[in-house]
Amino acid sequence: MFTFPRIPASKDLPMLFVRLLRKAEVTDPMGYGRLSVGTALRHRVSELGIRLGRLERGEGNSISDVPGVSVGHTTLIQGEGRLTVGQGPIRTGVTVILPHDRNVYREKVRAGVHVHNGAGELTGALQVMEWGILETPIALTSSLNVGLVHDSIVEFMLQQNPTIGDQDDVILPVVGECDDSYLNDIQGRHVKREHLFEAVSTAGKEVAEGSVGAGTGMSALGFKAGIGTASRKVAGSNLVLGALVLANFGGELHVDGVPVGRELGLRDTQRASRSIITVIATNAYLSSSQLRRIAARVPLALGRVGSLSANSSGDISIAFSTADRIGLLGEPVTAASHQVDWSILDELFAATVEATEEAILNSIFSSETMKGRDDHTSLGLPVDDVLEIMRKYGKL
Amino acid sequence: MFTFPRIPASKDLPMLFVRLLRKAEVTDPMGYGRLSVGTALRHRVSELGIRLGRLERGEGNSISDVPGVSVGHTTLIQGEGRLTVGQGPIRTGVTVILPHDRNVYREKVRAGVHVHNGAGELTGALQVMEWGILETPIALTSSLNVGLVHDSIVEFMLQQNPTIGDQDDVILPVVGECDDSYLNDIQGRHVKREHLFEAVSTAGKEVAEGSVGAGTGMSALGFKAGIGTASRKVAGSNLVLGALVLANFGGELHVDGVPVGRELGLRDTQRASRSIITVIATNAYLSSSQLRRIAARVPLALGRVGSLSANSSGDISIAFSTADRIGLLGEPVTAASHQVDWSILDELFAATVEATEEAILNSIFSSETMKGRDDHTSLGLPVDDVLEIMRKYGKL
Amino acid sequence: MFTFPRIPASKDLPMLFVRLLRKAEVTDPMGYGRLSVGTALRHRVSELGIRLGRLERGEGNSISDVPGVSVGHTTLIQGEGRLTVGQGPIRTGVTVILPHDRNVYREKVRAGVHVHNGAGELTGALQVMEWGILETPIALTSSLNVGLVHDSIVEFMLQQNPTIGDQDDVILPVVGECDDSYLNDIQGRHVKREHLFEAVSTAGKEVAEGSVGAGTGMSALGFKAGIGTASRKVAGSNLVLGALVLANFGGELHVDGVPVGRELGLRDTQRASRSIITVIATNAYLSSSQLRRIAARVPLALGRVGSLSANSSGDISIAFSTADRIGLLGEPVTAASHQVDWSILDELFAATVEATEEAILNSIFSSETMKGRDDHTSLGLPVDDVLEIMRKYGKL
Amino acid sequence: MFTFPRIPASKDLPMLFVRLLRKAEVTDPMGYGRLSVGTALRHRVSELGIRLGRLERGEGNSISDVPGVSVGHTTLIQGEGRLTVGQGPIRTGVTVILPHDRNVYREKVRAGVHVHNGAGELTGALQVMEWGILETPIALTSSLNVGLVHDSIVEFMLQQNPTIGDQDDVILPVVGECDDSYLNDIQGRHVKREHLFEAVSTAGKEVAEGSVGAGTGMSALGFKAGIGTASRKVAGSNLVLGALVLANFGGELHVDGVPVGRELGLRDTQRASRSIITVIATNAYLSSSQLRRIAARVPLALGRVGSLSANSSGDISIAFSTADRIGLLGEPVTAASHQVDWSILDELFAATVEATEEAILNSIFSSETMKGRDDHTSLGLPVDDVLEIMRKYGKL
Repeated sequence: MFTFPRIPASKDLPMLFVRLLRKAEVTDPMGYGRLSVGTALRHRVSELGIRLGRLERGEGNSISDVPGVSVGHTTLIQGEGRLTVGQGPIRTGVTVILPHDRNVYREKVRAGVHVHNGAGELTGALQVMEWGILETPIALTSSLNVGLVHDSIVEFMLQQNPTIGDQDDVILPVVGECDDSYLNDIQGRHVKREHLFEAVSTAGKEVAEGSVGAGTGMSALGFKAGIGTASRKVAGSNLVLGALVLANFGGELHVDGVPVGRELGLRDTQRASRSIITVIATNAYLSSSQLRRIAARVPLALGRVGSLSANSSGDISIAFSTADRIGLLGEPVTAASHQVDWSILDELFAATVEATEEAILNSIFSSETMKGRDDHTSLGLPVDDVLEIMRKYGKL
Repeated sequence: MFTFPRIPASKDLPMLFVRLLRKAEVTDPMGYGRLSVGTALRHRVSELGIRLGRLERGEGNSISDVPGVSVGHTTLIQGEGRLTVGQGPIRTGVTVILPHDRNVYREKVRAGVHVHNGAGELTGALQVMEWGILETPIALTSSLNVGLVHDSIVEFMLQQNPTIGDQDDVILPVVGECDDSYLNDIQGRHVKREHLFEAVSTAGKEVAEGSVGAGTGMSALGFKAGIGTASRKVAGSNLVLGALVLANFGGELHVDGVPVGRELGLRDTQRASRSIITVIATNAYLSSSQLRRIAARVPLALGRVGSLSANSSGDISIAFSTADRIGLLGEPVTAASHQVDWSILDELFAATVEATEEAILNSIFSSETMKGRDDHTSLGLPVDDVLEIMRKYGKL
Repeated sequence: MFTFPRIPASKDLPMLFVRLLRKAEVTDPMGYGRLSVGTALRHRVSELGIRLGRLERGEGNSISDVPGVSVGHTTLIQGEGRLTVGQGPIRTGVTVILPHDRNVYREKVRAGVHVHNGAGELTGALQVMEWGILETPIALTSSLNVGLVHDSIVEFMLQQNPTIGDQDDVILPVVGECDDSYLNDIQGRHVKREHLFEAVSTAGKEVAEGSVGAGTGMSALGFKAGIGTASRKVAGSNLVLGALVLANFGGELHVDGVPVGRELGLRDTQRASRSIITVIATNAYLSSSQLRRIAARVPLALGRVGSLSANSSGDISIAFSTADRIGLLGEPVTAASHQVDWSILDELFAATVEATEEAILNSIFSSETMKGRDDHTSLGLPVDDVLEIMRKYGKL
Repeated sequence: MFTFPRIPASKDLPMLFVRLLRKAEVTDPMGYGRLSVGTALRHRVSELGIRLGRLERGEGNSISDVPGVSVGHTTLIQGEGRLTVGQGPIRTGVTVILPHDRNVYREKVRAGVHVHNGAGELTGALQVMEWGILETPIALTSSLNVGLVHDSIVEFMLQQNPTIGDQDDVILPVVGECDDSYLNDIQGRHVKREHLFEAVSTAGKEVAEGSVGAGTGMSALGFKAGIGTASRKVAGSNLVLGALVLANFGGELHVDGVPVGRELGLRDTQRASRSIITVIATNAYLSSSQLRRIAARVPLALGRVGSLSANSSGDISIAFSTADRIGLLGEPVTAASHQVDWSILDELFAATVEATEEAILNSIFSSETMKGRDDHTSLGLPVDDVLEIMRKYGKL
């Protein structure tokens, strides 16, 4: 039984691992410096000819295909070798998703949350569940950095809305996390206020994938992973739905049904890493309870890629719609409209499963091998081998 | 776009359907008479060399591998041709799962429920969720027959426990359903008290699959389906976990990751049929909230076989443990024990996903083509074609 | 410690009980014959000068103040003396709440469910929770009669909608229950199809209270209870909200904060009886998740009247709005509108608490003493004594 | 309609308010300096002869009556007059509840969470709900200070458990909040790491009430409030259950059923303040799902004191049991035992309602009038007037 993260790469590396390492040519994985946004993009499954599901991809195949939605990352990579708490090595970051380009506190959007396995954190989730409303950006980060990122969003929101707590209600930010302790000096909590502000201020339509932002130190299904995104369109309409994942969970990697993990010799990594936070955005007009139901389709995608939702896995999803906006007292900011009928809803369910599955794979396919603290190494997926396997299984 | 159930087989059958029909040799699908228990078993995926997951199958690869658990079916098949409400054609039945061979009201078992998409019925679910306890057999049947089966279980329980409602608390039976209206005279509600009693009294370790019991008139993923079962063992222990499904849901059939549905020309059947009720049994000592979490792994299996959990799909799971028993006032009937630790729990999660996936496939592989009311026809999976496809995809 | 229902009234009656019996003049409690609708109305708290809360009562102080909503009861009272299962004594019935006077399957209404303590049954609840939609009447009855009433609603719906299960989706009726076994031959399951049909066909704006319909054999907080209703208006609007309860739960009766139960010598009756089903209706435009939140205010009213929500108590609430209607495929039947803002929502929360509290008290104040099977006796509240107590506590 | 917190006390004070102010003799409310622990105790309802419910109070009538449980506060009071963000006036703090005096990460306790109205934050709640386990202290603080307190608990836990994130799993602290913006410079987020550490290190059996710790700047039901505690014993056993509240919610104050708020002229304050976090501790052996059910009894107490659980109210409860402890991998640290039977459970439900009701009242009765930022004033309950009212209503 192969359990991934607890094995220091430099020493007693199992032979399989070595073989993979060699294939992936990990000669100098540490020449990253500080990653600039965008360079982490290595391979997207769409570029490799892998087609998942039946729906058409959105323009950019990204959560930012939903008009108004933007994403920003701050990536922190520094140091190597032995762990010294507070100094590094640092392999972490923060990612923010902005529902639209206006003040989200004053123009709230509808949202729903689904907790598939709650061994994780999504602060603000209780309020989103109760009100069906999202009124802050969504931030993703390292597990032990939730507090500081939470406080930083509060600061950001106060700057934007100085009357919060004076004339207006308080705010409870939405911050999700995964555990990057395998590669990162997690105790150091290196994501500070300026990093959150940078992520917000550089947010845009280009969504870097892989080892960026909150995804920097994450691994999934036995391989280096992190941030991934994808989208789907509803035929015959202008409706689009996009997914963004922070992938850090265990299981046996399946690509379009092909047991890639098993073929590469990696099985049963479920205890190895943990958690996936999924963010779904759409411009379809949906009620908050329909958005909760959208978020509840994410486990179907998890099953497809090989997750077993281990006991320690925080598998949490949040879905929001940009179709209408709600004011400070719950009053509508936009014109009344009708929610979609059930046939459209089914298409959006399908779009959710397909986009989430592809976003997860993108998070893995886009990630290079990374060496982190104590020389722990998370392998980039050996894509050539994978393509060979896909061909063997008649999928390319 | 091919939507399955609303197309009368005898008339304007699409060509693809005809081709499939021919392959499946539907020359006389109506010579069933009344199915005797056991004869419906056609193919189990294990017999075809298909291996799902990594855990070892239980002795009988059945929910009844869990000591004490037994299953009974009553299958009702009568008449053909044009629908006359109240007369037929009848393609329906009832299935009961008994947690142990003693009085389940006096020796209750721990249980948990997970509702993945609640567009279905599982009576008694609220009480199981609240108390974490199951105190009646579980019955499965046709959607419009829930009331009569509910009443029949009450009658059965009263015979066994004449002091109910006098000195003892009342009972709220657990009855799940799927919609067999495509093949069955569903308005006729043909499952009567004697059928429930017969299912209970004939319950045993042999679990017939396919078009039997509640599964008689069901279809899933575009093909005839019904009842399926499977089990998994936890290595190095005497722990076993079994699944039984009543499968009647839509989606695109995947067998071990192979897009069989698409290859056979059947896509997007999600609106066609609806719902799957899953029953999980184990002899592992688990708390009710752990059993809820076991039940919550079922969606991972649904994702693997191709479900999209459509809006109208009642995807509901119930899991129970036979490890300890609880008396009339919540007091223990068995000796105190400790719940399993988290590594065992993860194995049980894996077992749940694997057993459920295989049970669903068994429900399809075990089902012959069936013609029902108004000559509606649900095709048995063309197994030879499927094996060919599996070979093409390197899976056999 | 006084536990109410298990004490046969005729034999070893505690002295307190005897004193109460004498006061209530239970000389011939069995001269009821078959109660005709309406005659059970004895006292409503409003007629006694008791004022609960700050909002104005609706026109009729009834759930039927909500335009379109109607209520029907069938009351079954027959026989006396020793229990012979199947023959009686019978003290039971059925109550139906119709959301509007049109076909509720074709013009569905939004709804939400809250389960405060799920040791009870509300069939169909899972679907209402999932879809946020109610598409059948709501029926209330005796615990062991749920199956037959469920089947009867199916029959009623099929008569109204003959294409159900043919061209249209199936239906899953909403049936709630309480345990009337203290007074009623509960094993006899005396509510038959004709009784459900009668309740539906006689449903109207007049809502009889007390020992009528499903409430016939129920007791609450130590006294005879059953059906109660009340309503509240939102000032400066045409919005109204009404509650109807089937009250059968334990605790220590408080009337407007006055410990009436304690003063009368009745304490700790929580294990004695069990369950309360609450139905809330409003014409305010609310989303299904807001309606769930409305239903979630019911426990506040339960706390006020003295409930402790015992382990065996099925405390379940359902709220629906008549403001808009939804068609067969989830499409709107009525014009688009905006949900109410949060200040109105708060008023509706207040209305829910006040109307539910008053409905519970009405169910008790309206009920005469009743003798049932094996001469079990449930005492009508000694109203004169209560008024005296209220005066002593400065409340009248 | 009197809405409390938005009215600057110094200017256009309504006459009623002035009258109350005069009675409460608010001549110099600002001479507090920094409150030392314990001095805030003014009146407890037990000292005034008010008796709530039927169960006997615990030794100290405090959550710390549960063996092992301790509570610590850090109270921050500084400055007066006009608000300058970052400088004050400061009226805030932090409260911690420690489940036992050992390392709670290595000896976890069972726990359950109930969200009555989720418009608030309790970080870590999702994990407690999923695992049924509490592995960090519980901290309570000001809404906008959640992030910094969260980070501070992480730091505290890391000091105690340096292998977190290295060999061991990460931690997700439990931090609840209420909004103290009416009195406090909430934007300043004045609770820093040293304050959390001080609260932890000074935690003990003496539990100060009123305007201390997290309760410093809070108000409830129209009056100054904050922290309150109480406990109940289960007769004939060594079982005890205690409640601690952070009270900051609206409604109309009722004391033992007496409409004290209305009598004092204060009605409908529900929009004024918001939220109550309730912590329940017991030494009874309960499963996590039973603890969830304990937490779900809190709304009954809220109803009794006059809450309407307004839209903006975060009404969240967490209950834990000290009866057994769980190790790092979910394995038992203590000997196996049986959960309590249902009759004991009902007594614990009663204890929860009574202790919570009394804790809320203690939080109000123990609080002096406080003037805060911009001279906003929250009135201490005029206890003499209240006693007079209680007498008028026959309750003293």
